[in-house]
Amino acid sequence: MKVEQDLHMARGDGENSYATNSRLQEKAMLETRPVLQSAVVQLYASLPPGSTMVVADLGCSSGPNTLLLVSEVIGTISDYSRETGRDAVEAQFFLNDLPGNDFNLVFRSLDQLTTKLTAAGENNAEKATVAAVPMYYVAGMPGSFYTRLFPCRSVHLFHSSYSLMWRSKVPDELSRGTCLNEESIYIGKNTSSDVIKLYQEGYQKDLTLFLTLRFKELVCGGYMVLTFLGRKSGDMLLHGEVSSMWDLLAQALLSLVWKGRVEKEKLVSFNLPFYAPSMDEVKDVIEGSGLFGITHIGLFESSWDPQDDDADDAEVLDCARSGANVAKCIRAVVEPLIKEHFGFDEAILDELFVVYASMVAKHLQKSKAKYPIIVVYLKAKN
Amino acid sequence: MKVEQDLHMARGDGENSYATNSRLQEKAMLETRPVLQSAVVQLYASLPPGSTMVVADLGCSSGPNTLLLVSEVIGTISDYSRETGRDAVEAQFFLNDLPGNDFNLVFRSLDQLTTKLTAAGENNAEKATVAAVPMYYVAGMPGSFYTRLFPCRSVHLFHSSYSLMWRSKVPDELSRGTCLNEESIYIGKNTSSDVIKLYQEGYQKDLTLFLTLRFKELVCGGYMVLTFLGRKSGDMLLHGEVSSMWDLLAQALLSLVWKGRVEKEKLVSFNLPFYAPSMDEVKDVIEGSGLFGITHIGLFESSWDPQDDDADDAEVLDCARSGANVAKCIRAVVEPLIKEHFGFDEAILDELFVVYASMVAKHLQKSKAKYPIIVVYLKAKN
Repeated sequence: MKVEQDLHMARGDGENSYATNSRLQEKAMLETRPVLQSAVVQLYASLPPGSTMVVADLGCSSGPNTLLLVSEVIGTISDYSRETGRDAVEAQFFLNDLPGNDFNLVFRSLDQLTTKLTAAGENNAEKATVAAVPMYYVAGMPGSFYTRLFPCRSVHLFHSSYSLMWRSKVPDELSRGTCLNEESIYIGKNTSSDVIKLYQEGYQKDLTLFLTLRFKELVCGGYMVLTFLGRKSGDMLLHGEVSSMWDLLAQALLSLVWKGRVEKEKLVSFNLPFYAPSMDEVKDVIEGSGLFGITHIGLFESSWDPQDDDADDAEVLDCARSGANVAKCIRAVVEPLIKEHFGFDEAILDELFVVYASMVAKHLQKSKAKYPIIVVYLKAKN
Repeated sequence: MKVEQDLHMARGDGENSYATNSRLQEKAMLETRPVLQSAVVQLYASLPPGSTMVVADLGCSSGPNTLLLVSEVIGTISDYSRETGRDAVEAQFFLNDLPGNDFNLVFRSLDQLTTKLTAAGENNAEKATVAAVPMYYVAGMPGSFYTRLFPCRSVHLFHSSYSLMWRSKVPDELSRGTCLNEESIYIGKNTSSDVIKLYQEGYQKDLTLFLTLRFKELVCGGYMVLTFLGRKSGDMLLHGEVSSMWDLLAQALLSLVWKGRVEKEKLVSFNLPFYAPSMDEVKDVIEGSGLFGITHIGLFESSWDPQDDDADDAEVLDCARSGANVAKCIRAVVEPLIKEHFGFDEAILDELFVVYASMVAKHLQKSKAKYPIIVVYLKAKN
């Protein structure tokens, strides 16, 4: 698996695309809004008039969420400029993702953003004399965020939502087959402690690298707002956590092996470049780097079912329906990786995700399943 | 016609794509190399160590030429740094084109560039002790260059090759039909002086706007290297100039009208958002703006046939073959516009360009046809 080539959300805006199936990620953006707004206001207050705020979104993907960050930042700048009477700054955005991402779709949707922001601006302009929408520019920046993406000291704010749980690669020992994870595709019920250790070490290396790279690219005192899937505790396999979600997908793949549709070896050699850390693991790496101060770290939960807005309610009303919703959402995320590795056509992908939906439904009968999501708000040290 | 949506080179990298048919544009890049190198060296010499040179390519398109600018600039920086022993600067590139451009293809070809530059760098590194390839970053910037694209004073060098002959729109009077250009699609044999005036005025407005926008975006003393199709004299219709090339395409379209394949009204309402100026027209607008000093302006000629490297030779050896070559090249450029306006399928497009190829062949029997290409090298005034 070549992560830089093969890892991307399902392209386009059709029924099975990521663009159509990314409500979960949208909810996370809304949850982290206050932290993002705080970072933008702090930066704005520190910038001399007439300067440009440079904001980069890492792992922007394509679809309605991609431009959410841009409109949030523009909205915050324009509110703050109206409230304080300060001159607006210009804002330059870089939307980053791997080169396999559907940037064409992102760029063609920029028109809608302009229309939306102009309408909001005109609405606000009636209430105040200050020009409401600052000048802004949106560029696309292809590349892995585990490499350098920007010149030294050129970015004020990094944002990343639902991306940092993706690793730069599957642990080498698993790729080479010198260590096997058998029928699991991530850390599952049968995963050995050796494999768990490989995943953990890979995570620590990746996050350390990420922090080092971004520190070079950030201006002094720049901010990062990072949101990603995590774990509630040291325990790897709590009910409902993300590892049990992948374990169900592994079981669905295994059912295709039993039916003779897939070779067992294909499943054994498939492992996800993914790791969901606990808050302690995240804190350890950040503090160990010595590069960033943690302004805030927190965890919230989001129902597996993207259509379920009441995460506190313990009961799942319609398990079959929720199972199907979860399957759509996960398909939009992993279909390109699965297609590339197994060489599946549409028919077998459909079959896989029907089986997966029914397994998820069964899992939800026990109780509602929720993803833990970690938010970290970091400030670069001087 | 919505230029911002519909104007883009043929996508992908198939037989009829722009990527496969852009040798003409490549030759222009090679011709303007010394001017580009001079701009990069001047800028480099003026930058403090550890800073970043920001370079934007306007109308980058997709295909092999798109990354030519990046490798030229990187090569120049790395040569100069080796020769002078100066610290390398970082370089940030913005590849700009309209949102309809195939940016996905561009981004997926970045890998090849890295491989090429790394190989060149290692080769050079053997000869010298200075690190040969500077850090560089390539972003995509969708949008019309007749709008603001970059923050104030943020770009050191603008480059544009084979793009500035495209207008922001077809003259309004022609779009609305209050003025007709009959069977011509640009300035042709039968075009009235009123229509010529509309095209000329549109050009002056567009170029003035372009200069004003770029002046705001350039740092003090920043450079522009602009290459575009032009005319050798005030005369609009010299043999071989670009207007006669479009006139032949208009005749090919007219032949489809005669065959009953296309309605006459469709042809009458089709006009190109294009203008090829003379050197005097270019100079007048630049000097009139008062924003830029002309460091150099020149004109060179390039055979219509992209496969013909001997523009000085007056004779066309194989007119049929040259006609077919020209047709391929022009199809890659205008197919999207024609498809959008006429609603043609592949079959009728094939037919159109077969007819066109034979008309071009006939035209070339008289003598070789050559495009005049204007190069301007500008420095922003303080």
